[in-house]
Amino acid sequence: MTTSDLVLKFRAPDRPGIMAAVAPTLAARGCDIREAEVYGDDDTGGFFLRMALTSPIGRDELAKVVEPVASELALEWELHDLARRTPVLLAVSKFGHCLIDIIHKKEIGQLPIDIVGVVSNHETMRKTAEWHGLAYHHLPMSEGKEAQEARFLSIIGESGAELTVLARYMQILSDSFSEALAGRCINIHHSFLPSFKGAKPYHQAHGRGVKIIGATAHFVTADLDEGPIIEQDVRRVSHRTTADEMVAIGCEIEASVLSRAVRWYAEHRIFQNGNKTVVL
Amino acid sequence: MTTSDLVLKFRAPDRPGIMAAVAPTLAARGCDIREAEVYGDDDTGGFFLRMALTSPIGRDELAKVVEPVASELALEWELHDLARRTPVLLAVSKFGHCLIDIIHKKEIGQLPIDIVGVVSNHETMRKTAEWHGLAYHHLPMSEGKEAQEARFLSIIGESGAELTVLARYMQILSDSFSEALAGRCINIHHSFLPSFKGAKPYHQAHGRGVKIIGATAHFVTADLDEGPIIEQDVRRVSHRTTADEMVAIGCEIEASVLSRAVRWYAEHRIFQNGNKTVVL
Amino acid sequence: MTTSDLVLKFRAPDRPGIMAAVAPTLAARGCDIREAEVYGDDDTGGFFLRMALTSPIGRDELAKVVEPVASELALEWELHDLARRTPVLLAVSKFGHCLIDIIHKKEIGQLPIDIVGVVSNHETMRKTAEWHGLAYHHLPMSEGKEAQEARFLSIIGESGAELTVLARYMQILSDSFSEALAGRCINIHHSFLPSFKGAKPYHQAHGRGVKIIGATAHFVTADLDEGPIIEQDVRRVSHRTTADEMVAIGCEIEASVLSRAVRWYAEHRIFQNGNKTVVL
Amino acid sequence: MTTSDLVLKFRAPDRPGIMAAVAPTLAARGCDIREAEVYGDDDTGGFFLRMALTSPIGRDELAKVVEPVASELALEWELHDLARRTPVLLAVSKFGHCLIDIIHKKEIGQLPIDIVGVVSNHETMRKTAEWHGLAYHHLPMSEGKEAQEARFLSIIGESGAELTVLARYMQILSDSFSEALAGRCINIHHSFLPSFKGAKPYHQAHGRGVKIIGATAHFVTADLDEGPIIEQDVRRVSHRTTADEMVAIGCEIEASVLSRAVRWYAEHRIFQNGNKTVVL
Repeated sequence: MTTSDLVLKFRAPDRPGIMAAVAPTLAARGCDIREAEVYGDDDTGGFFLRMALTSPIGRDELAKVVEPVASELALEWELHDLARRTPVLLAVSKFGHCLIDIIHKKEIGQLPIDIVGVVSNHETMRKTAEWHGLAYHHLPMSEGKEAQEARFLSIIGESGAELTVLARYMQILSDSFSEALAGRCINIHHSFLPSFKGAKPYHQAHGRGVKIIGATAHFVTADLDEGPIIEQDVRRVSHRTTADEMVAIGCEIEASVLSRAVRWYAEHRIFQNGNKTVVL
Repeated sequence: MTTSDLVLKFRAPDRPGIMAAVAPTLAARGCDIREAEVYGDDDTGGFFLRMALTSPIGRDELAKVVEPVASELALEWELHDLARRTPVLLAVSKFGHCLIDIIHKKEIGQLPIDIVGVVSNHETMRKTAEWHGLAYHHLPMSEGKEAQEARFLSIIGESGAELTVLARYMQILSDSFSEALAGRCINIHHSFLPSFKGAKPYHQAHGRGVKIIGATAHFVTADLDEGPIIEQDVRRVSHRTTADEMVAIGCEIEASVLSRAVRWYAEHRIFQNGNKTVVL
Repeated sequence: MTTSDLVLKFRAPDRPGIMAAVAPTLAARGCDIREAEVYGDDDTGGFFLRMALTSPIGRDELAKVVEPVASELALEWELHDLARRTPVLLAVSKFGHCLIDIIHKKEIGQLPIDIVGVVSNHETMRKTAEWHGLAYHHLPMSEGKEAQEARFLSIIGESGAELTVLARYMQILSDSFSEALAGRCINIHHSFLPSFKGAKPYHQAHGRGVKIIGATAHFVTADLDEGPIIEQDVRRVSHRTTADEMVAIGCEIEASVLSRAVRWYAEHRIFQNGNKTVVL
Repeated sequence: MTTSDLVLKFRAPDRPGIMAAVAPTLAARGCDIREAEVYGDDDTGGFFLRMALTSPIGRDELAKVVEPVASELALEWELHDLARRTPVLLAVSKFGHCLIDIIHKKEIGQLPIDIVGVVSNHETMRKTAEWHGLAYHHLPMSEGKEAQEARFLSIIGESGAELTVLARYMQILSDSFSEALAGRCINIHHSFLPSFKGAKPYHQAHGRGVKIIGATAHFVTADLDEGPIIEQDVRRVSHRTTADEMVAIGCEIEASVLSRAVRWYAEHRIFQNGNKTVVL
């Protein structure tokens, strides 16, 4: 008998009895809970649950079992088959370190994603992308922001991407673009937010004389660099570290933080919780 | 209606249906799951579950409800009322930094423990302990190791301590003493285990020229410095860092790591899993 | 023959030949350079040098040798005998963790300072300070900010303190007070500056959903939380970490960061460099 | 007038007057010291000095000036022109993450090296190396270890490599090979040494249940994994982290640690000090 590795996510206004309703339903169909984590947020009253299951029945069949329970409890829910990789579209400008890192991790089996293409406002990374067999879409800004974003959205739609990753894509997005991708677009910002929003954050950090620099992966929202934070990391610097050296150190932090955020998304671990995230 | 904040721990050979049996039982008595985490270890086949509940009935009454379910499923289980603080006995030799840290954190409400006394093979820390109102038991080694350990065990018994914390207690324990305290005695070792077991680990680290030093909190077992690791942390050093400076830096790491291990124990988060730990 | 352990600090507009003028002068008097570090800031044109020397002649005698060289090169300079501990006045409000940490480190020989007293706007920490034999000056804010700060400055003067350490002293200082203590007053701010200036930074951090929190030791200036940063450190948190738990985690970061800044000051390692610091 | 950016390294038995002899000599030729660091090791009596200079005369001309001073003081010395990149030969087996990282950092100007070729006992990374325009030398072990190492040494000689970097080259080197490359061969070991020497260190770490894993860059010596440590770094893991996930996390640590060690070597910052390193 084959089994499926599934992930079940619930999100609901907090109320007792959710686990009591769900767990027996799963057990009755022979599902085995391998991992589970429940988080109830006392501030927002949100209830979050993620379960990794082995199931003797497939994703779609189990979904039919889960649906009535979720419906009765007014739960938002998702059920994913881990055998199906998340299709991801990458966007980049001129700096390729995050792009190269994600492509390499995907190729050696460390990221459960399919890369469905690369979008860029420059030609810089075309050769790299195409050498790895990826479609490269050059969307120059010269055609105008509105037209460019419209084409970008079309490519997302046509590619089947469920997640768009701004892997050092250095364009400020319009509100409508941000809203269209709400919850399915992750950006890497090259500072430890909320410090140093906006342009040239390492130069801002150098000017302020901080002793630690960082990077932040967050969901894109209409408020620039204000979206829900998914992951952050930092590295120690000193007065000797020039702004250029901070940029170089930052490349490693950015690639590491962004790839973790992408992995967690593809493993169905991330919930939005107001302007914060819950990662289970 | 008053509610109790309870923690329920299960540990069992892994089998499906555990959550399905437990969750409805709790829901039927009005318990609300605030946090839960399940971990199934594919290597050992162990299943671990920790839940934080609010319950309309008290610990003892709920225990009567849980018992038959656990019995039927052959689960090892514990049910704790968070209003009851874990009684802890501290042991120290001459270096007081971990002792002072734990006492202070307890006094300002950051550690959910009661300190039931301090044991030492020296008089060095008596003044400090007594100023904080703690009973101080001087057990010099001059009376012989066997007799000294017998008195130590008596004090543990009489004090009602459920956890003994070796807060830089610099004596090698006999096998029988270690076994008598299996699972309820935490030691802080002043190195990043398994590197630098035994005596003078910072001097060993200095001699080897490592660039990072650490400390390790672990359960005491008969194998010196080989017990299940609960927590570790590290700090960066350089060629300039002398062995004495490593000792000083280490004091901070040790106090921080040990207090985290004690907190997790007192919050009923730690499971032994063979020679490893699961912290939920 | 006895020798003195001295530290020589220079600071000057950058120009060639400084080391060439200084080193032979020292060698001619039999001084041995044990450590030295030179930093030239290409942005500000500042030149910074710190040397640790063993000297066959005492601090005052060597100062007479250094003075004409420094004068000719227009160097700002300091010469310190490490046998002389820096006198430090501590200020605290109600939270004692930084105070207790500094006192303990001083008592066990890990901080080369003398504590000349404790100032507080509350009585909370009097018992602790006095048990350690320290003079406690209660300066309640009820007497009015101007009068209170005047008394504070008097105590600094009378105590002979060369450094005032705000060890969680929760009062906003007037501009004139800050200016009077320029370069000799270190504050610990309980956030990773420049994020979360002002009040309740851990609650700000919790509200923003950051994944890492920190603390910052900086020189006090008239601009609140804007002074030159001396040291920072951070710790990872998650969505599960409550604001109160952040406060508890922060206590460790704050004490560690502040004690490092105090040590570096007492070891004569810190230079102000505009609104930044150079730590050699 | 053009200037050269030079680095001067000295190493000597510790004795007074070294700086006093050197600094005026440099100043007399118009050199400006931009950075300098002196370290005297009280344990070994070693004296280490690194200076970054701007010089109105070139490397070879200044060398003639330095030589008699160094000779008189019995100093080991090196003088390097930073405009000349260090030629580096990379060795790899099947895992390409360190190789790709070094190539990318070199290409975007973050590593001051020239890559003079890639050696491997497998064909796995040929395509990648050649796409980046690098000569690829396949040296299969099937030809016998002695013959293979002889060819490896020939390639080092012919390529002009001053540094050989074992970027996850998974072969144990013979003593004679190690000795031939003493001080000019850096290996990345995928554990936090001295823990977990030898094969499959992440699996060893997983088996021991450590809470932090790491990687170590060290000079290769005849004692496997016992050479002088240049750099280390670590990352937090938990009971949930599988051995395979440790391998994936480790890839990032390894690449980061190794590239730092290579950079420091190419910037002429590293001194061997017995079985330790001094990094200035």
